Amino acid sequence: MSEVFSPLRFEHGALLLLDQTALPGKEIWLRCESVETVAGAIERLAVRGAPAIGVAAAFGLALFQAEGGEGPLAAVERAADRLRRTRPTAVNLHRALDRSLALGRSLGAGAPAEVLREALLRQARELFGFELEACRRMSLSGAELLPPGSRVLTHCNTGALATVGIGTALGVIVEAHRQGRVDHVWVDETRPLGQGLRLTAWELAREGVPHRVVVDGMAGALMRGGEVNAVLVGADRIAANGDTANKIGTYALAVLAQHHGVPFYVVAPTTTVDLSCPSGEAIPIEERSPAEVLCPYGKSLAPSGSSALNWAFDVTPAEKIVAIVTEEGVLRPPFDSSLRRALDSARTPGGSAT
Amino acid sequence: MSEVFSPLRFEHGALLLLDQTALPGKEIWLRCESVETVAGAIERLAVRGAPAIGVAAAFGLALFQAEGGEGPLAAVERAADRLRRTRPTAVNLHRALDRSLALGRSLGAGAPAEVLREALLRQARELFGFELEACRRMSLSGAELLPPGSRVLTHCNTGALATVGIGTALGVIVEAHRQGRVDHVWVDETRPLGQGLRLTAWELAREGVPHRVVVDGMAGALMRGGEVNAVLVGADRIAANGDTANKIGTYALAVLAQHHGVPFYVVAPTTTVDLSCPSGEAIPIEERSPAEVLCPYGKSLAPSGSSALNWAFDVTPAEKIVAIVTEEGVLRPPFDSSLRRALDSARTPGGSAT
Repeated sequence: MSEVFSPLRFEHGALLLLDQTALPGKEIWLRCESVETVAGAIERLAVRGAPAIGVAAAFGLALFQAEGGEGPLAAVERAADRLRRTRPTAVNLHRALDRSLALGRSLGAGAPAEVLREALLRQARELFGFELEACRRMSLSGAELLPPGSRVLTHCNTGALATVGIGTALGVIVEAHRQGRVDHVWVDETRPLGQGLRLTAWELAREGVPHRVVVDGMAGALMRGGEVNAVLVGADRIAANGDTANKIGTYALAVLAQHHGVPFYVVAPTTTVDLSCPSGEAIPIEERSPAEVLCPYGKSLAPSGSSALNWAFDVTPAEKIVAIVTEEGVLRPPFDSSLRRALDSARTPGGSAT
Repeated sequence: MSEVFSPLRFEHGALLLLDQTALPGKEIWLRCESVETVAGAIERLAVRGAPAIGVAAAFGLALFQAEGGEGPLAAVERAADRLRRTRPTAVNLHRALDRSLALGRSLGAGAPAEVLREALLRQARELFGFELEACRRMSLSGAELLPPGSRVLTHCNTGALATVGIGTALGVIVEAHRQGRVDHVWVDETRPLGQGLRLTAWELAREGVPHRVVVDGMAGALMRGGEVNAVLVGADRIAANGDTANKIGTYALAVLAQHHGVPFYVVAPTTTVDLSCPSGEAIPIEERSPAEVLCPYGKSLAPSGSSALNWAFDVTPAEKIVAIVTEEGVLRPPFDSSLRRALDSARTPGGSAT
């Protein structure tokens, strides 16, 4: 864990993003010098994963530029509006923007642009550091949940690409493999965008973790065959009662895991917890373009005139989750109290102290 | 239902097959004049669906050609061996070959090639007619299971393309739509080969049935949202106790349906029932190339060195199936007795009289 790969960095006044839509075929770094290019990159999933888009948005805000007679703070507020409209479900982005906006406002309407920019950058770097350390701590706590020789199943991508550290669920899996606790990983393809097939398989190959990709429909048969000892997933937003929004397909895995007596774990930093949502019903679910379903991986396959419904996320109710692994440790039900305690003790920026 | 589309026909000494791998983009008819071209077409899924490959194999057998000093019956036996090796799970193919082989042998080792060929063709045409009528009867019986205004979910393709009639599960859905019982169909994409996205959507569009395609991972969220009133699927082999092998992903749907109190129906002719398999454990499950998973729709996307596991089918245990719709009517649990009764009363060629 000496050197942690990161899909984003801020250098010489620009946010550099590894374009995840081109992986694993090509490694292309995007140089974003404006709020708009960052917002566009988040929208088209060039950068993705709840923790990573939180950090990207925080850096993106620092790229604000005043227009016309606009003051610097007004420009920051406009930039925050733009970034907020990119993706509704993952709360990290909204939390990062709220926090940075509060800081900007605390400096007063008269603060010079460069003072504002420096403060926003400092805050973005602090969030980066927080998430990096949170991943490290989650990986160590979560690994202890897995008995030696486990075969685990994961969905979507929750590794270094989705965070700015070792990852959430995938960070736990990689650490557990180092400790001899994980023998093999089943990687859900994760249609429509194939984050498992393209990104998780790429990360596991880099880390030397034995794995095989399966179509999303195969998880049930694997569990019935006794091939899965645990399911680990990340989260885009966790409500106060523990209900968890995550990539479409997660809910089905939770039902299947419960049916087969396989423990289902969510791994996410406290920045993903949203106490203002009492339950999953209050979490907005992003609906993306039907083309992602009808034209798999860009290949037009559906008959003309067909339509699709493309919910990007679903909600897994708390009662299907055995534990939530955070940087504050492994939380157990009832989650309404354990999540509240974790947020109280979280230092910054997830904690209630902020 | 006046004119039933069929994906295969026998004309002028050749089996013509609509190449389903090219649909819906192109309608290409393959002309098969040898056992080998029929076997190859079955292997690469140019013709697919349990009833359709049964009929294709029966016609394919009639294309036998003696080699060297081989007698006609020996050539038929060799052709049957070749056709049998194409796909292990769908029992219709094996049953059709068994039946034709028995007929060939009953004519004696000395029967001339043309006598043998005519008998095999007559038997293939009889199976074709049987399956056509079975589809019609299943569609009428099955439609009665669905209350008016139902929203149903289906997996893979079980329409005219998979059979030689109106279809099995999709035949029921189309008929139920005509009767005002089905308002909307959720079409599972059905990775890895996209039979739902490519074929079921194409058939429903032709029939004017409202539908939307969804990724396989979304079925659970749809059921949780109350969007699904019934799940209907076909079958590749039904064991004596009702355990049913069908396209990978079916088992997960059955678990999800049971969890949400949504009825789960299997629709299949009695030719798909295999009383020689006491339970699903005895059904051989075809494992196909990892490339179907790693290169979705022919597009190479996985990182080099990644591997995949590609079970083409899974087994749904009988206790998750509310009813099995056959041409002999709607069968209810306990299936060991209801299946046996249905096979006893089935005329030919699924019935025990054969």
